[in-house]
Amino acid sequence: MTYCVAIMIDAGMVFASDSRTNAGVDNVSTFRKMRTFENPGERALMFVNSGNLAVTQATLNQLDQAIRRNVEPNLMSVSSMYDVAELVGEALREVRHRDGPYLQENNVDSGANFIVGGQIFGERQRLFMIYAEGNFIEATPETPYFQIGETKYGKPIIDRVVSGGTCMDDTVKCMLVSFDSTMRSNLSVGFPIDLACYDREALRIGRTHRFDDQDPYMLRLSQSWGEGVKRAFGQLPNVEWH
Amino acid sequence: MTYCVAIMIDAGMVFASDSRTNAGVDNVSTFRKMRTFENPGERALMFVNSGNLAVTQATLNQLDQAIRRNVEPNLMSVSSMYDVAELVGEALREVRHRDGPYLQENNVDSGANFIVGGQIFGERQRLFMIYAEGNFIEATPETPYFQIGETKYGKPIIDRVVSGGTCMDDTVKCMLVSFDSTMRSNLSVGFPIDLACYDREALRIGRTHRFDDQDPYMLRLSQSWGEGVKRAFGQLPNVEWH
Repeated sequence: MTYCVAIMIDAGMVFASDSRTNAGVDNVSTFRKMRTFENPGERALMFVNSGNLAVTQATLNQLDQAIRRNVEPNLMSVSSMYDVAELVGEALREVRHRDGPYLQENNVDSGANFIVGGQIFGERQRLFMIYAEGNFIEATPETPYFQIGETKYGKPIIDRVVSGGTCMDDTVKCMLVSFDSTMRSNLSVGFPIDLACYDREALRIGRTHRFDDQDPYMLRLSQSWGEGVKRAFGQLPNVEWH
Repeated sequence: MTYCVAIMIDAGMVFASDSRTNAGVDNVSTFRKMRTFENPGERALMFVNSGNLAVTQATLNQLDQAIRRNVEPNLMSVSSMYDVAELVGEALREVRHRDGPYLQENNVDSGANFIVGGQIFGERQRLFMIYAEGNFIEATPETPYFQIGETKYGKPIIDRVVSGGTCMDDTVKCMLVSFDSTMRSNLSVGFPIDLACYDREALRIGRTHRFDDQDPYMLRLSQSWGEGVKRAFGQLPNVEWH
């Protein structure tokens, strides 16, 4: 499995993805699930993905090739994030149409999901979730985040903490806590964690970082969170049976 | 869906179950998913279940009838918790064997799970998880709890807080927090929450309680936990990018 989150706040966006890929428990490896594209001052795009790795890689390759060969429309030429989402959905459909039947012969799932966000000059920042079928939905202020993969363990903390007005720093912290909870309860999600920030209206990728399992901040965060949760637990009122 | 948990600690056991049953979003109702059987001083059994409601009810009915008609072996006559788990598994197999093919005709899942625990005179307290196929596993000190249904949202807090040495009161609190997190993130799990405690060697069911959505303790717990989590979050170290 995989765990990826993207959150859109008033101040911008944060994307994060884990790096564990497994085909059975004896075939575990590390693959980056995050891609960024930018033309500084004009557009900044961030992608994370989950699902069949061959399918997501083939989809990204197809999108890359269109850019390199100047095939129109492509990710660097379209004028709206909506078109970006459409291009990703179409590429995903093509790959699954081509490879899906062969995978099905061996009962291999060709499903894959993308979260795509960013901003193109002349338009507001936008965030989309692209389903395995190639259709997609856009985030709104009421639901400012998308998750893919092993989403449940890390959802409660996001639901409790993040809203549109949350600052970038707190959003990053919340995402890392969400990963910490997920990795503690589920072996199929693992370090390193890739993180990318986008400051609204910047039109360039902001800070990016790869947190590995020895990252000193990640270790301190994990310890501080564990202690804080235990403290919160210790302060709960005694059970009363009415 | 459903959410049920049973935790075995040195001091005894705690069982908890939600009460929401749904067949589609327009057919939502309340059903108790917990059953207890006891012969005070001789045996105390606690059951929670998830899955197809007709299947779990039929399984429990079959077990009830065997007791009422004095069919041997039955839940009140067997001398080991292992035999209890076997009886439940067998009854579940019979019901699914009988009803399963009709359900399959309409693509209805006949899957169901039970968690069964308690103690019978002459034996230690024991806890079992019975799979939809009727086979089962027993909890050990390394894995002292079982969950069924919507298990993921509420797992991190149990993993963080509970171990064999946790006291009964803290175990109850932890389970209620686990339900609070689950209900906040998933609509298919809902009040009331049934809770039953068993004190090791008591050989009778301990305290039982039904927490509804207006239960004053549950409201205070939920508020206190929400504030505590936010406080813990506020005390996290600032993000550092090494």
